[in-house]
Formats: sequence, structure tokens, C-alpha cells
Amino acid sequence: MSKDQTKLVKEITSRDADFAQWYTDVCRKAELMDYTDAKGFIIYRPYGYAIWENIQKYMDFEFKKTGHENVYMPLLIPESLFMREADHVKGFAPETAIVTIGGKEELTERLIIRPTSEVLFCEHYSKIVSSYRDLPKKYNQWCSVVRWEKTTRPFLRGSEFLWQEGHTIHATENEAREEVLGMLDIYNNVGKDLLAIPFITGKKTDKEKFAGAEETYTIEALMHDGKALQSGTTHYFGTGFAKAFNIQFQDKDGGLKTVFQTSWGLSTRLIGAIIMVHGDDSGLVLPPYVAPVQVLIVPIQQHKEGVLDEANKLFNEINNAGFRVRLDDSDKSPGWKFAEAEMKGIPVRIELGPRDLENGECVVVTRYNGEKKNVAISAVVSQLPELLKTIHQEMYDVALENVNNNTRPALTYDEFKDIIEHKPGYVKMMWCGEQACEDKIKEDTTATARCIPFVQEHLGDTCPVCGKKAVKEVLFAKAY
Amino acid sequence: MSKDQTKLVKEITSRDADFAQWYTDVCRKAELMDYTDAKGFIIYRPYGYAIWENIQKYMDFEFKKTGHENVYMPLLIPESLFMREADHVKGFAPETAIVTIGGKEELTERLIIRPTSEVLFCEHYSKIVSSYRDLPKKYNQWCSVVRWEKTTRPFLRGSEFLWQEGHTIHATENEAREEVLGMLDIYNNVGKDLLAIPFITGKKTDKEKFAGAEETYTIEALMHDGKALQSGTTHYFGTGFAKAFNIQFQDKDGGLKTVFQTSWGLSTRLIGAIIMVHGDDSGLVLPPYVAPVQVLIVPIQQHKEGVLDEANKLFNEINNAGFRVRLDDSDKSPGWKFAEAEMKGIPVRIELGPRDLENGECVVVTRYNGEKKNVAISAVVSQLPELLKTIHQEMYDVALENVNNNTRPALTYDEFKDIIEHKPGYVKMMWCGEQACEDKIKEDTTATARCIPFVQEHLGDTCPVCGKKAVKEVLFAKAY
Repeated sequence: MSKDQTKLVKEITSRDADFAQWYTDVCRKAELMDYTDAKGFIIYRPYGYAIWENIQKYMDFEFKKTGHENVYMPLLIPESLFMREADHVKGFAPETAIVTIGGKEELTERLIIRPTSEVLFCEHYSKIVSSYRDLPKKYNQWCSVVRWEKTTRPFLRGSEFLWQEGHTIHATENEAREEVLGMLDIYNNVGKDLLAIPFITGKKTDKEKFAGAEETYTIEALMHDGKALQSGTTHYFGTGFAKAFNIQFQDKDGGLKTVFQTSWGLSTRLIGAIIMVHGDDSGLVLPPYVAPVQVLIVPIQQHKEGVLDEANKLFNEINNAGFRVRLDDSDKSPGWKFAEAEMKGIPVRIELGPRDLENGECVVVTRYNGEKKNVAISAVVSQLPELLKTIHQEMYDVALENVNNNTRPALTYDEFKDIIEHKPGYVKMMWCGEQACEDKIKEDTTATARCIPFVQEHLGDTCPVCGKKAVKEVLFAKAY
Repeated sequence: MSKDQTKLVKEITSRDADFAQWYTDVCRKAELMDYTDAKGFIIYRPYGYAIWENIQKYMDFEFKKTGHENVYMPLLIPESLFMREADHVKGFAPETAIVTIGGKEELTERLIIRPTSEVLFCEHYSKIVSSYRDLPKKYNQWCSVVRWEKTTRPFLRGSEFLWQEGHTIHATENEAREEVLGMLDIYNNVGKDLLAIPFITGKKTDKEKFAGAEETYTIEALMHDGKALQSGTTHYFGTGFAKAFNIQFQDKDGGLKTVFQTSWGLSTRLIGAIIMVHGDDSGLVLPPYVAPVQVLIVPIQQHKEGVLDEANKLFNEINNAGFRVRLDDSDKSPGWKFAEAEMKGIPVRIELGPRDLENGECVVVTRYNGEKKNVAISAVVSQLPELLKTIHQEMYDVALENVNNNTRPALTYDEFKDIIEHKPGYVKMMWCGEQACEDKIKEDTTATARCIPFVQEHLGDTCPVCGKKAVKEVLFAKAY
């Protein structure tokens, strides 16, 4: 038993007693990550990285299906290049890590570790694009980025994190706008199809948008503690960067035009979302389609004749049917194996002992609701697709119910403050469109505008904060 | 037509006139990469990155099949951690890039961008391993590393490159040694199965081994200009690092023991190998199984009735059969499309025009030998698997013949110097085992010991350089 594992079976902090500590406990005891000596830089352990690989696989397929190509841009950005777009600099310069020494010598120009790669893509596009025939360019890259953070938490906020960043340029504004919303759709589907997380989609207010973007769109998720988590964003840049970097093309009509640009990113932060949406007091609860191990077989009294043979047979059947299955025939006790399977959130556990064998049955336990059922061994494989589908759907439904139960309208600012202070979740409120009101809300309550939801309700005609005419309904919440 | 493409159809430098310039021309005009303002940091463009993705896919599958797990370690290494293994420091410290500023503040401890991650894996292993039950740990990571290089060339030697680095620890020396040779086998198979490159496998001399390793094994490839390219290495560390990092475990017998360790890495340098082994005066020549596009369909007189319909039909058939196919129905001329397909080394080009249609035929052109054949349209898909197999095999055979024709034995040191000076390729010679003789050879000729081949020949009893008793046959060459 490893050092970590001896601690595994001991209780973790209760989720409702101390959510932050519970989160950290799950991250470490489910062996998703480990800390290092460099603050904010974590190790993605095999189990955590495998979750990310499953997310990557889903997304990479969708990206390619929609005509995107992967590239790799350099890790380091010359400072002068980094400084070329003013808003972008203002947003990112404070949190950069800077290389000043290379090959034992002081560099003549300092190099910035990419916090995001807009400027590199812009510089490249300006070199390779000259005609409408070269457009669109729809590039994506998988990499890590570095942003110097003062307060860090595994997966949620780190000085380094893994992500994908898409960067596209288009001949027309319409096409660029379609790209921004199309990619948001794909992000939203990651929640629906893979993570069993219902996102709320919408547009960011100007205060909350990306440094350098004209518009930012977002998928927002609600965590079990009632806080929101921005889980992915897509940006419409218009021609701002393109003008700063002179990305022009000769159009069909012969005229010289500037391209319209987008970028979009989604990160390992999603692993944090999975933990905080689905986890419970026994640890992680993984939705089946993203789980590195979907089914764990635990033989009971495995020294008894026939038990391991039957367990291996079942393993092979499930494996050959294309599911991610593991058989734990180690010398640990079944109780220990159950606890580990629960801590790691494995969706389905199959127990198989001598008595079960006599009846040709096994016990199938579903992690998300703890239900146990006797199932004929011969029926396990054929029932698995439906079982995983049901688990996924019910986990999604529970999460959606949590969102619905914790989204409350506020018709007055007093009501808003009361709900934000005493209830978890989102508050919907009309808004005048002025940043002053957002600022006041943040100062009074720490809540922020999560998004202007695509699906709008009309709750009233005025902004409850300032009394002026309301232009939009906004979703507010305290957030990570 | 893009800025790059207008240059594409113009001639590139002849391979035999100026190999170095030819190489750079191919890298850029086949749109594999582009330079950036930071010296030695290149952009992997979609076509180049897609080659790497195909290599990754093959290797990742093999790694997982043999029980390896992917992880991700931090980009930055605290300087004190980096300094813990003396040989390693000596080897890598001179070429490190160092972060001294984070979040606008001078760091209290400098952070080194990983040139390789041994120390991070060691530190982590020392924390998570305590019992024989925790062993082996077989981890791999896909990432980029930074090594400050004075002379850089695309793919071959860069200040940043993409690679995988495997790091494993084992309870016994035997198991670790098996790992080192097993991974070398997988590397060797990448050449056989995917790149159509015959590697020579063997052990590095102590002079040429990895900084901190007890033994280094290598796959060596011979380029068209007669120089060798080290294409992948695996290392046996014994307990050197493990002792410096205190990676111990309690064995079955209760005793406290130190783990045996390995690491192994293979990089985007392989893209350089593909170019220099197979390329010709018309550009890149890609082996079919690693080619991002295996088949290009070029319609001739595509405005004529039926041509595009038939081309699309054929595209769909080939696509549905699982091949990577593209149809170029742009408004460029067929001649331009042919030149581009040749520059990009697409293995199979299919030409389809009105006259072909009348006969129910198309023209199939194979890039590696320029052969054209009329093939019934209805037979194309069914013949493709065999065609790709033949192309792969013949490309491999040509490359192997080049190795065989350019590997010469030297029985005296004069003969050695004469061959090295006047002939391309490898020279086989007996060796006494002393570094002094390697040093002398390098000083006299610039050639280095590429490896002590696994397949040994007995060419004599003494070392031709010093006259002492020979212990091994060594393969020497000038190298990249």
C-alpha cells in the first residue's frame, strides 16, 4: 500500500462542513494531482490526466470535424511582440513569467512564457495570408500556459494549466461571429455529452470580457457549494488585433481588407467542475463517458475456486465490448477496494464472489446513487450501454435540478442582496448596461455578472440598482 | 494564392547542390514550419504538426498497450531541485532558459524551463512510492522542452522541441533493463512500421551517453547526405538518480531497497529524419502511413460535365474506406496542384479528367517513384491498401539499400580517415573501449561513435587507433 493509499480509506472532510477542504481532499486522495515545490504548479497524475485525455479526444474530434487544424506555436513570446495590442497587455502583463537568462547569458530581449497565444497567431497569420483564397484559417493548439496567480487551487486556478486555444481568421464579420457561437456550442456539448454538466450559455458583460476582445461568450456551471465556475469562453475580436498586426487580404473584388478574428479556450479547469458538481462525501463521482475506468470488477474471496476465472472472463467480455474496465485482483481487502473505487468515482463496480457464482449472478453497484442490484453475469455486457446512458442522464438531471432550484429572480436590489447573502446559486436581475452598477454589486456583495444569458426573461423595465431603463437580464453569482 | 504558395511552384535548391539549403527549402515550402522572431523557436504549421500527431498516435497506443500511463509534470523546475544530480546538472545547466521574474516580481528562487524532466519525476516518485506493491511506475509525458542552442535548424536542433519523455521505476535491475530495451524496440518499430526508415540499434559509448545515465541506447538513421541522425534514445539509470532523490521501497522480504530507473525520449526530430531520408528535388516524399494526406484527387478540366461529380464520388469512397484523402477542386491549375502535391510529398495522386471518365479510368501517380498508371475507377479503393503497403515497403527498401551501400569497414586508421573524408555514411571499426581514441577520431575527422551495434561483426583483434586489444565493433559517422 503506497503512502497515499494508506490515507485513502480514512475519512475525507465532509463536503458540507468545509467545501474547500473537501475539494482538496478529493483532488489528492482520488490521486488526480499532487503539489510541487513551485507554488501553483501541479502534477497531473495518471488518473487526472486520463480525464483530460478523454476531454481532449472528444473535443479534438469535434474541432477537426468542423474544419480546424492543430498547430504548435512557441512557448516563449518576445516582449516587444507581446506589447503590440494595448488592451491585451493591460490584461495579461501583470501575471506573466519572464525568461531573462538563456544559455548562461542575459538575454537582449526578455521572453514571456505564453499566458495565451493571440500575438503569436496574429504575427504568423500576417505572414501567411494575402488573399481571400487563404481564408478562413482555423487553427487550434493543445498546450500549457503560465499565468502568475497569487491564490491558487488545483485545476481551478493555477500558475500553469493545460488547455486548448483556438485562433481563427475570416473574410467576413458574419463568418467570424458564426465561428464564435459554433465553438461555444461545442463547448456546451462537452457538458451535455461528456461531463453531465448543464452549462448556462450567454455573453459576458464588457467588464468581464477577455482582454482585447470585442465580445466574450461563456459556458457557466454551478458548483455544489452554490458558486459559479466560468468553464470555457469564446471571443469575437472584430478587427482589433488584426489591425494591430496588419492581417490584410485582397478580397474577390480586388479591395484590400482586414480579417475578422476569433479565439476560444477551454482548460483543465473542467476537472475541477466535474469534482465540484458531482462529488460527494465518499469522494469523486465520475460521469461514465469521461471516466478513465468505467467499470471495476472486484472479486470476493478471490482465493476460492472459480472466482478469479469468472472475474477474468467477465473482464475480457467487457473489455472486448469496448468499455474501459479494470479488474482489481490485488491482495487488498474487498472493503479497501470498494472504498478506493468510491474515492475514485468509478461509475460501475461489479462484485463477484463464490455465492454469486452459484447463482450465475454478480452484484452491480452504481457509484452516483449507491444502488446495488443482482444481475445475471451473462447479462452484464448487454446491459452496460443502457446502464451507462442512464447514469449519465440521471447525473445530468440531478445537476440541472440543482441549477434550477438555485436560480432565483430578484426584482429589487434589496432582494438581490438578501438572496446573494443567504442562498447559494445564481440570481437573475435586470440590468441597465452600465458598468457602474456591476461595480456596485461587486463591492456590496462580491458577486459578479456571470453572463447575459442567451435565453432572456423579462423581469421588469428598470435596473434595480440605479433605477434607469433596463436593457438585459443578467445572471449574477459569487464565483471561483 | 498565399504568399508562400506563389513561391511554391518555383524551383527549390537541388538536393545534391546544397543539401542544407534544400532541407530548409523543403521545410518551408512544404509548409511544415515557419520561423519566429525568437531564434530557435519555430511554428509547427498544420501539415508538420499533423505528421507529429500521426507519430504520437502510433506511439501512444504502443505505450499504453505496454502498461504505460500519461502524466503531466510542471513546465518549471526550481533551481535547487534541478541541481540535485551532479552529472545531470553538468550536462544540461549550460543550455537552460531561466525564469527570474513572475507576476512583476523578482523570484526568490529562479525557475528553470524543463530541458528534460528526470528530477521532477524523481521527486514525485519519492513521495508516492513506499512498497513493492507500488512498483513498477511506468509514466510518460507529451510536452515541449527548452534547450538553449547556439546553432539551430528546423526539427533537427531547436531551442524548443516537442517530444515524449518516459520515466519508469522498477523493483529489480532486470525489469528496468528489459524496459530500456523494450522501449528501444518500440522506437525501432516506428521506423519500420510508420516512417519507412531502417534504424541501426545499439548502445552509446560512455562519451556519448545521456547526462546521468549508466547506459544509453539509440536508434540511428542515415540521411541522404551521408550524415547520421540520432533519432531516439533510451536510458538505463541504475540507482543513480534514485539514490540522489531517495526513492526507496519496502520489498516483499521486508528490506528497504532503492528502485532501478529508466527514461526514454523521442522527438519532432523524426520529422527532420523523414525529410532527409526520403525527400528529393521536387520536395518532400512522405511514407504513406505517416502522411497527413495519403491520397490527393485532382480533377482535370473540372468545369466539364461529370468530372467533379465523379471526383466527389471517388473522394467519398476512399474517405469511407478509412484513408486520409483530399480533393483539390480549387480554381488553381492542375499543373500547380501537381507541383504542390509533389512538394508536400503526398504518396498517391489521382488525376481524373473527361477523357479518363469516358474509359471509366483515372491516372494514379505514386510520388516516391513518379510512376503513372491507368486504373479502373471502380478498382481504386480495393487496390489502395496493397498500393500503400508497396509504397511503404519500397521506400523502406531504398533507404535500407542506402544504409547498406554506405556502411564500410575500416581495418586501419588510415583507411578509416580516408573513408570518412571521401565517402558518405557509416564506418565500422574495432575499438579498444577507451574514450581517448574516440576523442582522437573526433579531433582528426569530426566523426563520432554513433553506437556499438547490437549486431556485432568481428573485424579484427585490435583497435586501429591505438593498437590495444579491441573490445567492440563501433559504428562511426559524421552526424547532425
